[in-house]
Amino acid sequence: MDPDQCDFPPMKDLTADNITDNVNIVNSGAKNPRLRYLTEAIVRHLHDFARETRLSMAEWEYAVDFLAACGQKCSPTRQEFVLLSDVIGLSLLVDSIDHPKPDGATEGTVLGPFHTHDAHHMSNGDDIGTDPDGIPMLVHCTVKDLHGKPVQNMQVDVWESDSKGFYDVQYKNRENPHGRAVLKTDANGQVWFKAIVPVAYPVPTDGPVGDFLRAMGRHPYRPAHVHFMFDKPGYDHLITALTIRGDRFESHDPVFGVKKSLIVDVEQVTSDSMAEKCGVPLGMKLLEHEFVVVTNAEATKLRREKAQEIMGHGGRKIDFYNDLPFLAVD
Amino acid sequence: MDPDQCDFPPMKDLTADNITDNVNIVNSGAKNPRLRYLTEAIVRHLHDFARETRLSMAEWEYAVDFLAACGQKCSPTRQEFVLLSDVIGLSLLVDSIDHPKPDGATEGTVLGPFHTHDAHHMSNGDDIGTDPDGIPMLVHCTVKDLHGKPVQNMQVDVWESDSKGFYDVQYKNRENPHGRAVLKTDANGQVWFKAIVPVAYPVPTDGPVGDFLRAMGRHPYRPAHVHFMFDKPGYDHLITALTIRGDRFESHDPVFGVKKSLIVDVEQVTSDSMAEKCGVPLGMKLLEHEFVVVTNAEATKLRREKAQEIMGHGGRKIDFYNDLPFLAVD
Repeated sequence: MDPDQCDFPPMKDLTADNITDNVNIVNSGAKNPRLRYLTEAIVRHLHDFARETRLSMAEWEYAVDFLAACGQKCSPTRQEFVLLSDVIGLSLLVDSIDHPKPDGATEGTVLGPFHTHDAHHMSNGDDIGTDPDGIPMLVHCTVKDLHGKPVQNMQVDVWESDSKGFYDVQYKNRENPHGRAVLKTDANGQVWFKAIVPVAYPVPTDGPVGDFLRAMGRHPYRPAHVHFMFDKPGYDHLITALTIRGDRFESHDPVFGVKKSLIVDVEQVTSDSMAEKCGVPLGMKLLEHEFVVVTNAEATKLRREKAQEIMGHGGRKIDFYNDLPFLAVD
Repeated sequence: MDPDQCDFPPMKDLTADNITDNVNIVNSGAKNPRLRYLTEAIVRHLHDFARETRLSMAEWEYAVDFLAACGQKCSPTRQEFVLLSDVIGLSLLVDSIDHPKPDGATEGTVLGPFHTHDAHHMSNGDDIGTDPDGIPMLVHCTVKDLHGKPVQNMQVDVWESDSKGFYDVQYKNRENPHGRAVLKTDANGQVWFKAIVPVAYPVPTDGPVGDFLRAMGRHPYRPAHVHFMFDKPGYDHLITALTIRGDRFESHDPVFGVKKSLIVDVEQVTSDSMAEKCGVPLGMKLLEHEFVVVTNAEATKLRREKAQEIMGHGGRKIDFYNDLPFLAVD
């Protein structure tokens, strides 16, 4: 950027004590008020972190190298920074901030690093995986809105690991998606598909995040779960996952993805009508769940109320830019 | 890590409100108390940042992609995370925390991304660069301790850009180091070498950090300066740089590396004795400076006092691990 076009006042004479102020002076020319607000906040937090902890240069160098190593580990099928965010609980937190839930709505949870955009579109009753070693399981879901009305024609992304605990993208020779699919709810708000009983598996530990987990004395095992993602124009995007009750890792998931309301039992198909409708034998393992989704209007209202409550406390005035809040400067 | 070996209590039933507590529970088994303390602090700050700003998933995704792009830009001669840390003032802050200066000591400043470990060892009087387009300049430095005593046999790393504003490592076909050298102070605590008058230059803007600067309405130009690094067993490592007075970018350096005490005038060689000693003509440009370095003992004392003042306020008890502080838990 041409220095003549820069629009910020000169810095104060730089000292260790006014460095944060000076950074904010230099950043004050940003045109996008939300970006300016976010930058001011992250700079303040990082500076406070360094000041509070008396961070050493050696530790800073370690952090710089760690972040570079995370970046170098990233590939089209591996996002080490998502994993890093997951294992420090940040992903779960941001999901809960961005997708607030009124009472009765299905809670969200972490996306994780294994969602892809190339899953095949399938129809109710299809088999999403090709794992002969897995225990076959019928998944039967109903999607409703907050008023109990079925939501039809909603896109449902599902994905799970295979019976060895690996997602398709973790295999080097992957040619086609397995263990994942994109479906649409029918007129009754229902999708059903054949899958396998999920198993516990470790998050990838062959990168810098694995080193971090080991240094922190943590194990990498996620309890068995199936991922779901729901999309339909007019509805708030829902990313969630159902965890199988009683899993050994239920109370110490390394990515903080387990919520009480999302723990489910694996049952068996016992009704003739379901067996017939879904084309499966009686006695087959069954994961049945009712999801409750919220509309964009409901989510937006909650988001704005929460922004007002948290950012606007003490009478501070907040404003919105592209529907995202920032502190208004008088 | 084997889950049976993990030593932390089960999480509380996860909600959006207790996620930070739960992350700290899971991290509480770390053996290294300094790492545990740093992790607790950075997690708290990042969570507070997300909560305060009501961070959106789209912004989080942007951040994740930005960090990955920074990592992918890193190479043996390019460290984009150092540059990122520099442009948000974090590098300068950490240097000032780790290398506190008593009155009278030379202040430190940013290392920057262009220091290398392959500079040739040279002797007093040598020419550190081969840039026929630069304006020749003699650099003459004296290094003393806080008591005014010359420090001999101290290693002095120096590096500067060429007359076009580029460091040697920014040229694709670099075979040998240019514009950099490693010298040793003589019995009078002095080093001198031939260089060129430094010029203002932009930090690299062809990576993600360049995108950030543009989004923030900032220019990338650093005022003209020469880098210095001082090392000798028993002395606190000093990284600093001298900026030429009157540079257009003096009061808005993008990496916050300019401090008042580090702004110097370019003079001319006027004394016959200096011209003779250094083997340069009268009238040659001259950068002359006296650096005052501190001992490890002096720096350690100041670091501990500051840690006590900041971390120990309110009667909190602090402890040290490898000479780095952490909050002691009763």
